[in-house]
Amino acid sequence: MDEKARASGNNNYAADISSIKAAQERISSYVHKAPVLSSETLDSISGKKLYFKCECFQKGGAFKIRGATNAVFSLTDDQAAKGVVTHSSGNHAAALSLAAKLRGIPAHIVIPKNAPKCKVENVVRYGGRVIWCEPTLQSREEIAAKVLQETGAVLIHPYNDGRIISGQGTVSLELLDQVPQIDTIIIPISGGGLISGVALAAKSINPAIRILAAEPKGADDAARSKEAGTIVTLPETKTIADGLRASLGTLTWPVVRDLVDDIIVVEDNEIIEAMRLCYEILKVAVEPSGAIGLAAVLSDSFRNNTALKDCANVGIILSGGNVDLDVLWESLNKSR
Amino acid sequence: MDEKARASGNNNYAADISSIKAAQERISSYVHKAPVLSSETLDSISGKKLYFKCECFQKGGAFKIRGATNAVFSLTDDQAAKGVVTHSSGNHAAALSLAAKLRGIPAHIVIPKNAPKCKVENVVRYGGRVIWCEPTLQSREEIAAKVLQETGAVLIHPYNDGRIISGQGTVSLELLDQVPQIDTIIIPISGGGLISGVALAAKSINPAIRILAAEPKGADDAARSKEAGTIVTLPETKTIADGLRASLGTLTWPVVRDLVDDIIVVEDNEIIEAMRLCYEILKVAVEPSGAIGLAAVLSDSFRNNTALKDCANVGIILSGGNVDLDVLWESLNKSR
Repeated sequence: MDEKARASGNNNYAADISSIKAAQERISSYVHKAPVLSSETLDSISGKKLYFKCECFQKGGAFKIRGATNAVFSLTDDQAAKGVVTHSSGNHAAALSLAAKLRGIPAHIVIPKNAPKCKVENVVRYGGRVIWCEPTLQSREEIAAKVLQETGAVLIHPYNDGRIISGQGTVSLELLDQVPQIDTIIIPISGGGLISGVALAAKSINPAIRILAAEPKGADDAARSKEAGTIVTLPETKTIADGLRASLGTLTWPVVRDLVDDIIVVEDNEIIEAMRLCYEILKVAVEPSGAIGLAAVLSDSFRNNTALKDCANVGIILSGGNVDLDVLWESLNKSR
Repeated sequence: MDEKARASGNNNYAADISSIKAAQERISSYVHKAPVLSSETLDSISGKKLYFKCECFQKGGAFKIRGATNAVFSLTDDQAAKGVVTHSSGNHAAALSLAAKLRGIPAHIVIPKNAPKCKVENVVRYGGRVIWCEPTLQSREEIAAKVLQETGAVLIHPYNDGRIISGQGTVSLELLDQVPQIDTIIIPISGGGLISGVALAAKSINPAIRILAAEPKGADDAARSKEAGTIVTLPETKTIADGLRASLGTLTWPVVRDLVDDIIVVEDNEIIEAMRLCYEILKVAVEPSGAIGLAAVLSDSFRNNTALKDCANVGIILSGGNVDLDVLWESLNKSR
């Protein structure tokens, strides 16, 4: 099957352009249409025209509300009545809490103990019930299973769920409507929900659009998976980008495998420098996971990749802005 | 003369709705149309619908490019040939440097030695020639006069200039186009260029719109001037809001006297708290002078003012984002 056929819906992916358009209709009254910013200074540093889709200004401070509202408002009344459960390092947790609040149902949130303070505060602010777990995938899943059993609520996985992928894909519809000349989109990759939705929508609208993932060196399981041709998980991850530590899921991997053109791996110090540029030049608070797209376009691996030489109009998704100010400050100082 | 007649152009103000509309046409290809952000969290804290006009995302990081490009592109070729001069604590300086660069003429900038580093860097980045002076109005004006004599360039005053006032007024046209339901606009006040332009445009479009100034306690010359009915200057100023230390000018005072409905004076710790909220909730880097409008709407003097009880849809101009990260960090920590 060629790429166009794949993206047009003749496939077995968990989402497609129709489900993404349906998501857009379902969630539009609950989410912000985040603005796109540009900066001649950053254009001149990168040598490209850069378009920053500011999902950091989204409700809950990240794109996650898109998938969360799509999932929550897809439930029947009966399904919704017992509430929703998830395990998440933070932004999906806050988003699901907010989406549940909008629908008037409970949200039970399993959060690892090392999650950033501001992300936990967002969960509490939106009325989510916090249940702590150890910072391992095993503990997260075990405790989530226990909560599911106790409550009878519906599990809304942070990314391995077609409703979530469809919701996140609405970023792509908006961005290409706001800046039709975009030829390349750079997206942070973690579990793959955002990039799967963005890739499915973008390639369906224009199969020539390049989809590039940006991934931290200390959690480069997606790059390794692409190389191995199968899902690779890492025994441990080490990166400042707390939102990018998850591994690909069974529903996101096929999309990443087929529709992501390349994965750009960057070091933490490149991410920190990108956060600094976002703050100093764009005047936007961006969390490490959110700044990685800018880090990627400024990296040597992007600049030296001859296959990417003719990228001209580059969309960069600043995926979230939930960074504790002391973390930003300490990171920037350490890197000096 | 009634307020409507005053604002409609039957007056001797240095600008009016026609000159502001002409400015919009003149500068539109040089400036960003800054987005308006909103936040349900901040709405719920303030009890109002707040609309943040993000001039911190403007070119040069502040609204000042509007007046600067309007002034520079109003010059005849002969006038422009010898360049422009100004004295400024920073944002106007950077903006004039950029505007001059866009027109291809020199900019000579007299800057007080205590100006924030990031503002001076912006001047240099945009090709302005920096000439240092002492941090007093007298030194600024003396050295500027000397530079004028040496170069034959045109003085572009930071605010006491009809072209500047008209340019800054374009913020108002944009904001009321973006959010037509606005009934109140809160604007930082210093020399009065921004608030004069905004007031003249807004009151001409809708005389019922309330124009409120926000001013720091340590530089409250505008509030004292309104009370005295004449321009009051302070022997010294002391505030974290480095952009709000100037005194009203002969061209801005009449507009402030007639069209500004009230001046809300806030303490530095309220400004710092507003900067924190901008960063943590809006995800926007705002300098102290830029955050003062949010400080004002959250202040007791606003909340307890019965004349302002029925303000419902409040536009807040986040006038600039040029804040050194270490200044932000230190301020936030000191205030804890």
